[in-house]
Amino acid sequence: MIHKLALIGFGTVGQGLAQILHDKQEALRRNLGFEPQIVAVCTRSKGSLYQPEGLDLAQLLQAAQSGSLASYPDMPGLERGWDNLKTIRESNAATVIEISYTNLTTGQPAIDHCRAAFENGKNVVTANKGPVALAYHELLALAAENGVRFGIEGTVMSGTPALRLPGVALAGNELSEVRGIFNGTTNYILTKMEEGLSYAAALQQAQELGYAEADPTADVEGHDAASKVVILANVVMDVPLSRAEVSCRGISHLTSADIQQAKAEGKRWKLIGRVKKEGGRAVASVQPEAIPLTDPLAGVMGATNAITYVCDLLGPITLIGAGAGGVQTGFALLIDLINIGRGNL
Amino acid sequence: MIHKLALIGFGTVGQGLAQILHDKQEALRRNLGFEPQIVAVCTRSKGSLYQPEGLDLAQLLQAAQSGSLASYPDMPGLERGWDNLKTIRESNAATVIEISYTNLTTGQPAIDHCRAAFENGKNVVTANKGPVALAYHELLALAAENGVRFGIEGTVMSGTPALRLPGVALAGNELSEVRGIFNGTTNYILTKMEEGLSYAAALQQAQELGYAEADPTADVEGHDAASKVVILANVVMDVPLSRAEVSCRGISHLTSADIQQAKAEGKRWKLIGRVKKEGGRAVASVQPEAIPLTDPLAGVMGATNAITYVCDLLGPITLIGAGAGGVQTGFALLIDLINIGRGNL
Repeated sequence: MIHKLALIGFGTVGQGLAQILHDKQEALRRNLGFEPQIVAVCTRSKGSLYQPEGLDLAQLLQAAQSGSLASYPDMPGLERGWDNLKTIRESNAATVIEISYTNLTTGQPAIDHCRAAFENGKNVVTANKGPVALAYHELLALAAENGVRFGIEGTVMSGTPALRLPGVALAGNELSEVRGIFNGTTNYILTKMEEGLSYAAALQQAQELGYAEADPTADVEGHDAASKVVILANVVMDVPLSRAEVSCRGISHLTSADIQQAKAEGKRWKLIGRVKKEGGRAVASVQPEAIPLTDPLAGVMGATNAITYVCDLLGPITLIGAGAGGVQTGFALLIDLINIGRGNL
Repeated sequence: MIHKLALIGFGTVGQGLAQILHDKQEALRRNLGFEPQIVAVCTRSKGSLYQPEGLDLAQLLQAAQSGSLASYPDMPGLERGWDNLKTIRESNAATVIEISYTNLTTGQPAIDHCRAAFENGKNVVTANKGPVALAYHELLALAAENGVRFGIEGTVMSGTPALRLPGVALAGNELSEVRGIFNGTTNYILTKMEEGLSYAAALQQAQELGYAEADPTADVEGHDAASKVVILANVVMDVPLSRAEVSCRGISHLTSADIQQAKAEGKRWKLIGRVKKEGGRAVASVQPEAIPLTDPLAGVMGATNAITYVCDLLGPITLIGAGAGGVQTGFALLIDLINIGRGNL
């Protein structure tokens, strides 16, 4: 059955998804019985398109790369200029892909996009941390009320299945703690500092590579990791936690001397996000920790992310993989869509 | 709904499962709606029990620890002395847990146990590598023909979800290679050699801790890891591979000098099992490799296992966790049972 999709936002992640669907159309149909079709794309600055019978993916990608969806060719039935909410409410999509910009203070307008989708009987799949960090329980309940699904794998560690793994593969374990490296930019900076660069030089290199923003505050002060810790507490540990309850310290005060001293002691600094369950409550932090080289998290270098689940039956289980990237996060959206199709989400 | 189980074999893994079901009965019912009931246990040397209304788990564990199921108390309806095949065919279990002894040459009698279960409309959940390494496709087809399920998570890396992860969380990726550390005994020995022990002393310590058998050949010469490579090729990579096609070399020739030289070069010896897809065919090996410390597999120490999946969309994804243990492998059986209950296996 064809699964019709409306994309709200079409930056690197949306284009990553469209590229995967373009390249793998035949394999997805043959191997997984999955037949996605992008019917709508809405953007802030590049215009918007709606074609109830499906947009042509090659033309869509070409138009996006040209800078404006106005260059997408006219076809019978094509509508232009619909806004986000009209698209969410009135398009024939079964699922809304919410990948508009992330606001970690208000979660808007993404939260309203999710609400509108659910109220109109549409699933939401998102890689946007805002709605999940700020309104997960409300949105999950609204989805359930309307008999639709809420896919959020892409909000933590891109397509690395940090959120899906525990539910499908660790169920039956009690998790006392999850901890990990949830920000690739800071891990890249720490890796480069161990190789001898100063903090300032390592940050500049991360900026040049596109890992860090011009204003790197959200990464280097731990705010991005803290949002992921909030999501992990609520989704994976099933304990309520708000952003204000996460004690948060970044890496900007670490010096090359700190890095070298840890190295001499057989340790390595990592920006560790952590949620522990204590007496039914979540205790959460983001802070640099000098961890022993025998900890699997210590070996995670560069922009890679990792998570350790501390399980009562299995002991520690660690998952290491990409934490960002257009294709990697595009895949996170895809795996949620595949599992919606299987009835497993 | 109550899920009735017949256990063929009741060593550390079977007792691990029974202990989990005993300790977590209430949590499994409340959190997952899962209500397992062990109705039969057959052993080679401790006798056998069948109670259609369910055995008492505390009494069962106590009897097993006493050395003979003869000490399990008489109760109305209790049958004693049924053999494996009678239990598989005639008990009222919905699922047979095949955990009899492993034979990696013939797979018997476990393969016949699986066949009998499927032909009698019963699911099989197993941690026994024999049937999966030698007869996976035949058994999977027989299960499908009879509308029942074949759960095999416990055959590789105990409860660490090495087999489940790719299907549920990486689907849509093309896997060009999987590689990993699939034998805890040899990884323990290599870890101890790096700490300064000779091969002989490290092996002796592994034997004293119960990691290595009195005859350690299957572990140290790579045969155990090779069986897991065969399973991974057939199950995860979906390419046919037989044991004879795996080139296999163990660690018994490695010297302390080799270990120290690798260390000096920023590398570490690991016994690596590997399957690569080349032109639609599997190319597989087990051999010691000196891998760079920047590889996540290099940081896996002691008896821990790990696997890296090389994905076209996501890049490398690594999973690290326990590779053995009664409770850990008991959990592997449990997670298959939970997923049968969910209709996801």
